[in-house]
Amino acid sequence: MKNKARILIDCHDAKGLVYTVSKVFFNRNLNIDNNQEFVDKETGKFFMRTVVSGFFELQDLNNELRANLPKGSHFKVIMPKKKKIILMVTKESHALGDILIRHSAGELDADIQAVIGNHKTLEKLVSRFDIPFHCISANKLTREQHEQRVMKTLSQFTFDYIVLAKYMRILTADFVKIYSKKIINIHHSFLPAFIGANPYKQAFERGVKIIGATAHFVTNDLDEGPIIAQNIIPVNHRFNWQDMQKSGRDVEKSVLSRALALVLDDRVFIHGNKTIVF
Amino acid sequence: MKNKARILIDCHDAKGLVYTVSKVFFNRNLNIDNNQEFVDKETGKFFMRTVVSGFFELQDLNNELRANLPKGSHFKVIMPKKKKIILMVTKESHALGDILIRHSAGELDADIQAVIGNHKTLEKLVSRFDIPFHCISANKLTREQHEQRVMKTLSQFTFDYIVLAKYMRILTADFVKIYSKKIINIHHSFLPAFIGANPYKQAFERGVKIIGATAHFVTNDLDEGPIIAQNIIPVNHRFNWQDMQKSGRDVEKSVLSRALALVLDDRVFIHGNKTIVF
Amino acid sequence: MKNKARILIDCHDAKGLVYTVSKVFFNRNLNIDNNQEFVDKETGKFFMRTVVSGFFELQDLNNELRANLPKGSHFKVIMPKKKKIILMVTKESHALGDILIRHSAGELDADIQAVIGNHKTLEKLVSRFDIPFHCISANKLTREQHEQRVMKTLSQFTFDYIVLAKYMRILTADFVKIYSKKIINIHHSFLPAFIGANPYKQAFERGVKIIGATAHFVTNDLDEGPIIAQNIIPVNHRFNWQDMQKSGRDVEKSVLSRALALVLDDRVFIHGNKTIVF
Amino acid sequence: MKNKARILIDCHDAKGLVYTVSKVFFNRNLNIDNNQEFVDKETGKFFMRTVVSGFFELQDLNNELRANLPKGSHFKVIMPKKKKIILMVTKESHALGDILIRHSAGELDADIQAVIGNHKTLEKLVSRFDIPFHCISANKLTREQHEQRVMKTLSQFTFDYIVLAKYMRILTADFVKIYSKKIINIHHSFLPAFIGANPYKQAFERGVKIIGATAHFVTNDLDEGPIIAQNIIPVNHRFNWQDMQKSGRDVEKSVLSRALALVLDDRVFIHGNKTIVF
Repeated sequence: MKNKARILIDCHDAKGLVYTVSKVFFNRNLNIDNNQEFVDKETGKFFMRTVVSGFFELQDLNNELRANLPKGSHFKVIMPKKKKIILMVTKESHALGDILIRHSAGELDADIQAVIGNHKTLEKLVSRFDIPFHCISANKLTREQHEQRVMKTLSQFTFDYIVLAKYMRILTADFVKIYSKKIINIHHSFLPAFIGANPYKQAFERGVKIIGATAHFVTNDLDEGPIIAQNIIPVNHRFNWQDMQKSGRDVEKSVLSRALALVLDDRVFIHGNKTIVF
Repeated sequence: MKNKARILIDCHDAKGLVYTVSKVFFNRNLNIDNNQEFVDKETGKFFMRTVVSGFFELQDLNNELRANLPKGSHFKVIMPKKKKIILMVTKESHALGDILIRHSAGELDADIQAVIGNHKTLEKLVSRFDIPFHCISANKLTREQHEQRVMKTLSQFTFDYIVLAKYMRILTADFVKIYSKKIINIHHSFLPAFIGANPYKQAFERGVKIIGATAHFVTNDLDEGPIIAQNIIPVNHRFNWQDMQKSGRDVEKSVLSRALALVLDDRVFIHGNKTIVF
Repeated sequence: MKNKARILIDCHDAKGLVYTVSKVFFNRNLNIDNNQEFVDKETGKFFMRTVVSGFFELQDLNNELRANLPKGSHFKVIMPKKKKIILMVTKESHALGDILIRHSAGELDADIQAVIGNHKTLEKLVSRFDIPFHCISANKLTREQHEQRVMKTLSQFTFDYIVLAKYMRILTADFVKIYSKKIINIHHSFLPAFIGANPYKQAFERGVKIIGATAHFVTNDLDEGPIIAQNIIPVNHRFNWQDMQKSGRDVEKSVLSRALALVLDDRVFIHGNKTIVF
Repeated sequence: MKNKARILIDCHDAKGLVYTVSKVFFNRNLNIDNNQEFVDKETGKFFMRTVVSGFFELQDLNNELRANLPKGSHFKVIMPKKKKIILMVTKESHALGDILIRHSAGELDADIQAVIGNHKTLEKLVSRFDIPFHCISANKLTREQHEQRVMKTLSQFTFDYIVLAKYMRILTADFVKIYSKKIINIHHSFLPAFIGANPYKQAFERGVKIIGATAHFVTNDLDEGPIIAQNIIPVNHRFNWQDMQKSGRDVEKSVLSRALALVLDDRVFIHGNKTIVF
């Protein structure tokens, strides 16, 4: 069967890895459509992303790579197909809206399973796109109680990633652990500057001349996970913090959408607290 | 006498300030070549920079503005002319080199009085441009003793600004106080991220996707003064911290040179811990 | 009545213009919230945009400015309020979608009266936002016949601007003349590079390392009107022209939305084939 | 002998090329320090740049690659060492100055053999760096006569590249042919916009909001060679063309220096009228 696959390898560096892998592809008569590697000298780790096409069975390719790669190597053979995602939001519409529009235009390589909001604010916008919206209010609930309800809703779906499209609540370590390496957040500052609440107010008070946004995987430490993408825009003394917030929205939404596209395309490796982005 | 002047006003906002000032210019039959104002709503402060040309005596214009502006207003009438600057450096040549080349090409609206280095490394480069280099080693000296020697050298010159072109020593509060609002520094990070030592190493360890540089006035708090200009460049996982440092040099030198040009052109107001840049 | 107004002045430069205008505001006890001027030395034209607030009647302020400004000066006193716009589209959804989302979030200082498409493709997207969509097919019509139908539809609405959000048909000189200075277009290249059809293919063939987009007013000459805003993104040899097109969409939509915001905020003067943007 | 080499391959795409090449490295027990490939689908060409280290003789590696690569493949095995360059200039110092400073700091992986100017203007600057300056005036000479003299001077040196650091004369097709793929130019516009004389004046007259610079290899067609690097800076209505020119200098010098660094690092393949930049 004519197939296409993305092979993602993440293992200890060793002489001959490129040779070993390319031999597998060569023996099976596969085309290498795209290939990128990287060796992190500091940690001695090897990363490789290859897109191959040809006649092969996924399972066979899997077996052959396992037989040839050094023991203990992590690798995945992924058939390109739409991933499933859940969006979580609060009240701001710009990041959500950008994803909805891309989704509706067929530009996003994902199916949005549902949107979960802790307020009703965005219900109408989501319903315009015929996507289920679940309002799970945190009102009068402890953080744990609220997350229990969110998790109950999440359990109704299968999904690959949770995208925090301006979800303004802090997640507990337990929640993050359960969905480890599956949560993507947009932080409204140029991390690591202005960690914490209201980064635009902090930026305004510091008198910076540039503001930014950071898309990252969420780990236990708030605003501290592996960064996927960042971008910036210039500001000046005429901007009060609300102006910065308004201008910041454009960079937030574009950075989140770019990071999401990279993740959906299987271009992002998590490596400790960093990412390798091919 | 046909003259040109920059008028810088910095006072409490009040109704009619633009009218008051423009009346002075109108009555004296002066041309307004350029005019920018800004009111900081938060602090109720008014800033204005006007370039006028025409037949006038500096002293008369000064008197008339004093007579018309609200009591207590700060203002300066400045004839555009080359300012005098002192450069302070350590071992890295890129920021210094960029200023020397601009100076030598007549692009810099300043006369470099001298370069002070705490190492001999850059003596040769400076001597190529026939500019005096003063090596003041900090070897075996306390911070205070070293600064005493620097100040002794500084006292031989008249100057408007001290430019820290990658001067890698921390200045004491006393030193900074003496040259208050006269010291411009280039910090090799996108402040307020990565304050302190080796920002590129910090940036590398954090796994950021963008690095930057910040030119600012130096105040008591290290890396905390009013920001004049910032810029950034993208990096990726292939950059180790030395690569970031190398790439960072280009943005450091361009940001410092841009900030310096703005200051020399009298376009920068210091307002608390911020700047107004017209 | 407590009012706010934007005063836009566009006249021949003369000594005392700032004084004259600020005297009017001063005499009426108005606050200047924001003020920017520019003199184009080449053409001797003066441009001023002032935002004032205070107690005044629009008509009085109008009269007083007319009485004081040099004869023949153009000026407008505009009360800030939502402008009315018509969108014209073809098949691509990104620029339209961005405007619809901003509109739906209340971020756009405009009411969208209708969307006119020469294909049905975007009808569904527009209907999601409860905005009327008029499909006016050009099938089997001459350019003139098609435009007649478009104009008939346009005549049902009052509007301030027509926004070509990836409307892929060329407009006749007659059409453009009728809606002179009212049509805003997004061109999918960094004008004046790659004028004409399929700029991304042209860019790909030329091997550029940066692509861009240009928002401009439409005048008789195709792709030649006054530029309002431009932006760019880097590309490399891995981009084929379809990749450039895909990446280009993000910059197209952000440039158009930014230009539109500037126009809606009355910040853009048309000056010959250029713009002054305050 | 412990060695390091850059292998550059440029051939028709075929199945197994990565395998073939990596087998050579594996059999010789070489480390792959860095590896990038690209297949141009349109032309069916394969490009690969690999940095290997280990114990090997250059000639052996050469022979083995020749034995294994498809017949007719172009490839080079390059030992990293300083290349030799000649600079050509006219009157402007910024691009030259940036290269001289980098050279003097040991940042440039090249030895400057000489600077050739068609005016004496930059002689003093060059002499500050103890580099020979050859003034070859074009006064009263035909273009061909002048180039004869330039070539006579060039013939005294061995060099890898000629860098036109704001050399403001047009080169004949004959001259360009002789130094084919060896001449790097900085064009002071965002090509292909504003080809020809005084691009800043053209940019000013068109009213663009962004200006740029383009570094490219020089081919027969003026301003039409393969682009290596481009960058831009924003401008606005306050810039006259001289201001654009002044601001443009910063982007010109940084783009040229970046392109030069890429070329010196053997990262640039010329492919028809385009470049592949690894």
